[in-house]
Amino acid sequence: MQWVVHDAAGRDLASDADYMDLALRIAQDAGTKGEVPIGAVVVHEGEVVAFAANRRERDQDPTAHAEILALRQAGQRLGSWRLNDCTLYVTLEPCPMCMGAAINARLGRLAFACRDPKAGAAVSLYALGHDDRLNHRMIVSEGARREVASSLLSRFFAGLRGGDGSLDPGQAA
Amino acid sequence: MQWVVHDAAGRDLASDADYMDLALRIAQDAGTKGEVPIGAVVVHEGEVVAFAANRRERDQDPTAHAEILALRQAGQRLGSWRLNDCTLYVTLEPCPMCMGAAINARLGRLAFACRDPKAGAAVSLYALGHDDRLNHRMIVSEGARREVASSLLSRFFAGLRGGDGSLDPGQAA
Repeated sequence: MQWVVHDAAGRDLASDADYMDLALRIAQDAGTKGEVPIGAVVVHEGEVVAFAANRRERDQDPTAHAEILALRQAGQRLGSWRLNDCTLYVTLEPCPMCMGAAINARLGRLAFACRDPKAGAAVSLYALGHDDRLNHRMIVSEGARREVASSLLSRFFAGLRGGDGSLDPGQAA
Repeated sequence: MQWVVHDAAGRDLASDADYMDLALRIAQDAGTKGEVPIGAVVVHEGEVVAFAANRRERDQDPTAHAEILALRQAGQRLGSWRLNDCTLYVTLEPCPMCMGAAINARLGRLAFACRDPKAGAAVSLYALGHDDRLNHRMIVSEGARREVASSLLSRFFAGLRGGDGSLDPGQAA
């Protein structure tokens, strides 16, 4: 798939909200397949080079979070594990595993939609993207499509739990 | 591969050092292929159910640390992403990504050989396996075959840097 929005001079005309909308569509699709609905997209110079949803249940793979799958795919697509010039869009704040993966990938920028107070490692429990002791730091942006992303997760967990409506991605993630 | 050491009653007779020796052999092999020599083994009820080496360079995959590959393989082999009854043996203290993966896998026990002062997230920079705010905690053991593991990494980096002998896995990991 190519998903490019730019003008004739190659300038990127898509906004964070546009890319997050794509991640949300991918997340929503995963939710219909019984996965916690989380989606991720990697953008390099205005082009989507990777996108993935959470596949933990389908693959019985503890590492199959959307971010891990998208970062791996981006490395393959770009022919390098170094993703300094990439932005990772993800619908939920990454857990320690996924923030660690972003650091290992030397990711340029992370943009997430809503926070995860139970397991978030970008701003909530840890700020792994800004630890001067580690060998990489990144730009972290939050809030694009926050309400839509939060509501998607709330509805998913409400459905699982018979309608209490509580947002508890940490317990399932 | 099966690598089982037990008596007629099925009791596990292998020690941490035995499993770490296996991880070290896997690490050493990766080193000869230009990868930072780190190896991991997952043991379930006395049986090796997964083993992997770091493949970052070969796969150009920022997530292809030995632990991630071994945990994924263990999930596939056991048919479940929940690895509560497993021990992960790894020759170097895991980074934040790999500690996060162990938490996501609900890993029962982690055993690592030598510490990584630059990126270790089990005891050095973070103690992610013992954070009461996260939804899983694990037993963490260290030190089996510490000197062998440390020397393997030192020799690898000395070779890369023309012989200064400094151990600096963090910069390459």
